[in-house]
Amino acid sequence: MTIQALHSGLDTIWVVLTAAMILLMEGGFALLEAGFVRSKNSVNIIMKVFADITIGTLCYYLIGFALMYGADYFGIIGKNGFMLKGNFSYLHLSISSDTFWLFQAAFVIAVISIVSGAVAERINFRAYLLYVILMTALIYPIAGHWVWGGGWLGKLGMEDFAGSAVIHALGGFSALAAAILIGPRKGKFTSKEGSSIALPSNLPLASVGAFLLWFGWFGFNAGSTLTATDVRIGHIAIVTMLSAAAGGAATLIYTLFRYGRSDAPSVINGSLAGLVGITAGCAFVSDQSAILIGIISGLLMMAATNWLEAKQIDDPVGAFPVHAVSGIWGTIAVGLFATKGGLFTGGGWHLLGVQFLGLVVLCSWGFLLTWIGLKVINLWVPIRATDDEEEVGLDISYHGIMATHTSPEFINVEDYFANQEKATFKHSKHS
Amino acid sequence: MTIQALHSGLDTIWVVLTAAMILLMEGGFALLEAGFVRSKNSVNIIMKVFADITIGTLCYYLIGFALMYGADYFGIIGKNGFMLKGNFSYLHLSISSDTFWLFQAAFVIAVISIVSGAVAERINFRAYLLYVILMTALIYPIAGHWVWGGGWLGKLGMEDFAGSAVIHALGGFSALAAAILIGPRKGKFTSKEGSSIALPSNLPLASVGAFLLWFGWFGFNAGSTLTATDVRIGHIAIVTMLSAAAGGAATLIYTLFRYGRSDAPSVINGSLAGLVGITAGCAFVSDQSAILIGIISGLLMMAATNWLEAKQIDDPVGAFPVHAVSGIWGTIAVGLFATKGGLFTGGGWHLLGVQFLGLVVLCSWGFLLTWIGLKVINLWVPIRATDDEEEVGLDISYHGIMATHTSPEFINVEDYFANQEKATFKHSKHS
Amino acid sequence: MTIQALHSGLDTIWVVLTAAMILLMEGGFALLEAGFVRSKNSVNIIMKVFADITIGTLCYYLIGFALMYGADYFGIIGKNGFMLKGNFSYLHLSISSDTFWLFQAAFVIAVISIVSGAVAERINFRAYLLYVILMTALIYPIAGHWVWGGGWLGKLGMEDFAGSAVIHALGGFSALAAAILIGPRKGKFTSKEGSSIALPSNLPLASVGAFLLWFGWFGFNAGSTLTATDVRIGHIAIVTMLSAAAGGAATLIYTLFRYGRSDAPSVINGSLAGLVGITAGCAFVSDQSAILIGIISGLLMMAATNWLEAKQIDDPVGAFPVHAVSGIWGTIAVGLFATKGGLFTGGGWHLLGVQFLGLVVLCSWGFLLTWIGLKVINLWVPIRATDDEEEVGLDISYHGIMATHTSPEFINVEDYFANQEKATFKHSKHS
Repeated sequence: MTIQALHSGLDTIWVVLTAAMILLMEGGFALLEAGFVRSKNSVNIIMKVFADITIGTLCYYLIGFALMYGADYFGIIGKNGFMLKGNFSYLHLSISSDTFWLFQAAFVIAVISIVSGAVAERINFRAYLLYVILMTALIYPIAGHWVWGGGWLGKLGMEDFAGSAVIHALGGFSALAAAILIGPRKGKFTSKEGSSIALPSNLPLASVGAFLLWFGWFGFNAGSTLTATDVRIGHIAIVTMLSAAAGGAATLIYTLFRYGRSDAPSVINGSLAGLVGITAGCAFVSDQSAILIGIISGLLMMAATNWLEAKQIDDPVGAFPVHAVSGIWGTIAVGLFATKGGLFTGGGWHLLGVQFLGLVVLCSWGFLLTWIGLKVINLWVPIRATDDEEEVGLDISYHGIMATHTSPEFINVEDYFANQEKATFKHSKHS
Repeated sequence: MTIQALHSGLDTIWVVLTAAMILLMEGGFALLEAGFVRSKNSVNIIMKVFADITIGTLCYYLIGFALMYGADYFGIIGKNGFMLKGNFSYLHLSISSDTFWLFQAAFVIAVISIVSGAVAERINFRAYLLYVILMTALIYPIAGHWVWGGGWLGKLGMEDFAGSAVIHALGGFSALAAAILIGPRKGKFTSKEGSSIALPSNLPLASVGAFLLWFGWFGFNAGSTLTATDVRIGHIAIVTMLSAAAGGAATLIYTLFRYGRSDAPSVINGSLAGLVGITAGCAFVSDQSAILIGIISGLLMMAATNWLEAKQIDDPVGAFPVHAVSGIWGTIAVGLFATKGGLFTGGGWHLLGVQFLGLVVLCSWGFLLTWIGLKVINLWVPIRATDDEEEVGLDISYHGIMATHTSPEFINVEDYFANQEKATFKHSKHS
Repeated sequence: MTIQALHSGLDTIWVVLTAAMILLMEGGFALLEAGFVRSKNSVNIIMKVFADITIGTLCYYLIGFALMYGADYFGIIGKNGFMLKGNFSYLHLSISSDTFWLFQAAFVIAVISIVSGAVAERINFRAYLLYVILMTALIYPIAGHWVWGGGWLGKLGMEDFAGSAVIHALGGFSALAAAILIGPRKGKFTSKEGSSIALPSNLPLASVGAFLLWFGWFGFNAGSTLTATDVRIGHIAIVTMLSAAAGGAATLIYTLFRYGRSDAPSVINGSLAGLVGITAGCAFVSDQSAILIGIISGLLMMAATNWLEAKQIDDPVGAFPVHAVSGIWGTIAVGLFATKGGLFTGGGWHLLGVQFLGLVVLCSWGFLLTWIGLKVINLWVPIRATDDEEEVGLDISYHGIMATHTSPEFINVEDYFANQEKATFKHSKHS
């Protein structure tokens, strides 16, 4: 047994275990969203996540990974490595390219899941499948190449350790474009008294999701070291914890004093905002900075939620406030607080400037390509559910089944699958 | 600190962490089954899983592990190591025998859980407890000895890396025997129009289960290396991901085009079928083979589900299609696609022949011993719930409690426990 | 790459991964409690856990950790290390102090969560927040210093590997004090026929929690080695499994024969009792001792539950029976069964005596400081919810929202937040 073999084994299990934790976050996303939206759409939420982890994974294997990490072509795009074929030695990995791919695949699934939340309850399922392909094969990989894959943003010095910008800001602005283009849910902004919300169908379920996300985020941030011997791992883990705690505490206390009640959805999203906010700088900022980053992430998240309502943009689970806004703040925070290069730590303006540029580029890229992409998809498959489909609920409209059934009777199998082909489901009257 | 000590520590934490992940899959099984069956039986499902992880663990500690991994006796059975006493050096482990036992215990619990799904909603609880003992102390360990414990199938060259045959095919055929012997649920096949299904009581709950299973499966497959320095770990992890994604994508797209709707239970089971299918060959096949294996696992799972319905065999959660059929396909696939020895990779027919023989032996063993075992148990305790018990629901009949209660009132403790002794529960009228 | 760097990386990822697993147990606690209590209080349960992991974490970072692990001051308290500043070399860690802090933070959150269960359904939320600060900044850290931080109990030779006494017994007796002081829930002991129980609102949800706890406990116990090269890790993991299995099997079989029905809440709590019971001795006792410890933990848990009922102390989720009683038994069991120093293994009475002394000290400390602390808090904020708040439910009273909503309508945002400020929530009539 050589030190080399031990090192390789250690790094490999570290990346495999953290990749598995990130993949568990998909379950977290699914449950969080399902619990936050109305129950007639919970199955659809879950099916969209399954689409992410099945179709998204395959697209990233066939095409996306190569565009992201293939040998660099003019700083724009990768040009080899489709289906993981080829020599990846220029990546200088201590793990196999297989293992590296798995970890990256977990990231791409996170991006597409962010968008799925913003279009919840009204996107056409087939259109969504096409968008999954677009995001996982094209939009995200190219942007990822610019920052992480040897492309021009990385060369300029942009620092995004685990994806505040590449994953969360890009994902959040893609989500924004989709939410605006698809339009608000019926009934969301029709009240004369201003905007409305739909009450969460199942907060305990959403909380299961939040706890799985919080757990998995240790893999998301600490695993981004891609090697177990990176001396920053312990620090990354604790600033992740501190920022999440600070984001949650900020919203818990803020809503307690502002409204007299700690608002559960705000506290959940506040903790998630803290997690997103620290994702860029977890390797670069101090403990105290992390607490400040978390607090501001939580408060910005709440402000952004109000802003969306004022702009009459419907984002059912807060994908934009939690991911885009906290992601932007987190990326900027690196430029402010990074122990090396941060504005407040004597590093001058350069890093901050690059972070800002990178954000503008990534958010615009996500927004524009999503807008254009959905418009193109719409020529082929309407991206919006019909009024009837939305009214009945996407669970029945797109999956011929409801989330829960209380009836103990058996129904005929032929009827079950025949109902899959109709817009309504006859037993729904009985359940 | 020596290299030896580091190596041992590394391997130990690898196996302990992956064993814990496999044990979390028990929670996954419980929630998947509880969400798929009718709500009057959810608590019973969960109690059966608790029986698996409590009584099953103890039986495997006292007896089962020794029969499986004890020093080989004529290729048939192990003959020492009861209660982990003795010298296990012939196993040539880099980890302690304690650690090895833990990982193996996680496997045996998976086998018995497969059977619990097939007999859901109608097996007598006490009879089930007796069957747990039989499976974990006898049926599985002996079969496991033949393949992994130094027995005759392993000597013939059978390759089953993490248990497609030993765990999933054997478990699935044990499940089939139990399902046939116990008979279908009342109302399942009584409709003149053909077969019927009971609608899932809680699909979001079943999905939590599926996500936990998917996460744990990385431990199931990659942990089977039993050493962190096995260079195949990264590859094992990604083919696990690719096969699961392929199985889920196949069912998602198939049901979408066949019925116009992506069917949620099919997609969930399709992903699980992909996971089962790759379990034999995860160390031996290529990425592209894994995708093909996953697709075929998903489609075979659906065909097998239809076949069961046609044969009027009631398998409430699809234990046989997901585990037996995908397990058989996965084991055969090794004989076809293994980079060393596969038929399609120039290795000839030998490996394929051994895989086939092994499957016949293991499936017959599981089927016959389950059939005989349940018949014997039936002499002592009726294996089937009475009509009343089944009608009222096993939660009340066997556990005196329902899965959910909406009433905020307090009920008298004496009544609560007295009701445990009666078949009905008086507050059920109010909840 | 040096052996030193490999060793440090290995230990670091071990502690980070196990710390993440312990933090996932918080989700486990939340779901277990939410499923066990009445649905009108589930959101409040979850919010109390969020308070634990947000406010508790920050308090432990700012103050608690220093009091617990700061350089020792007369064996009583730590005196430096606030906000992790300073030199911790006297701790002789192979990991960074950051990483060590994260693992310890996970422990402190577990303690406060134990108390949250005992005061469920009737504690004032603001009072609870103040108590969180008290426990995480003061009560637990000082006690922890005595045993683990270089203080006087540790110097006397007390052995508590992962916290049966420091976390579970102390937490359980703090819970007892809080439960007694706050008083029983309305309706709990008013029946003329003796004591009453509220039926669990969602047993499947509670089971998700139990499975997450069981999984995380491997991190809790095995991770307490704080180094991956500790040769006891495998043994710790398997005795954890055996004790949990034994506790669950004992309750499963006991209730089956005593009442004719295996009682689900008892089986869940029996497994947890087994986990608590082995927490002190997991590094010191044999496999067979672990099984005995688990069985007795389960049975003692049931006896203690009955004792609380007889004493008319309301502990809605069994925090005292599961944590205090099993924690005490587990700590005593070390004095009896420890392979080195145990009474039954020829080690004489000394260790047993020290364990007993330590328990008396820790339990009294937790009980008294909680009693005094809550009385002081009560001068400022009433610790008990008002009759109306309790009647309506804490979800609405303290968070202006219910756990589940079936209505698909949108409600006005201003109304939603205005309702946060009132004791009732007008849409509750419609949901």
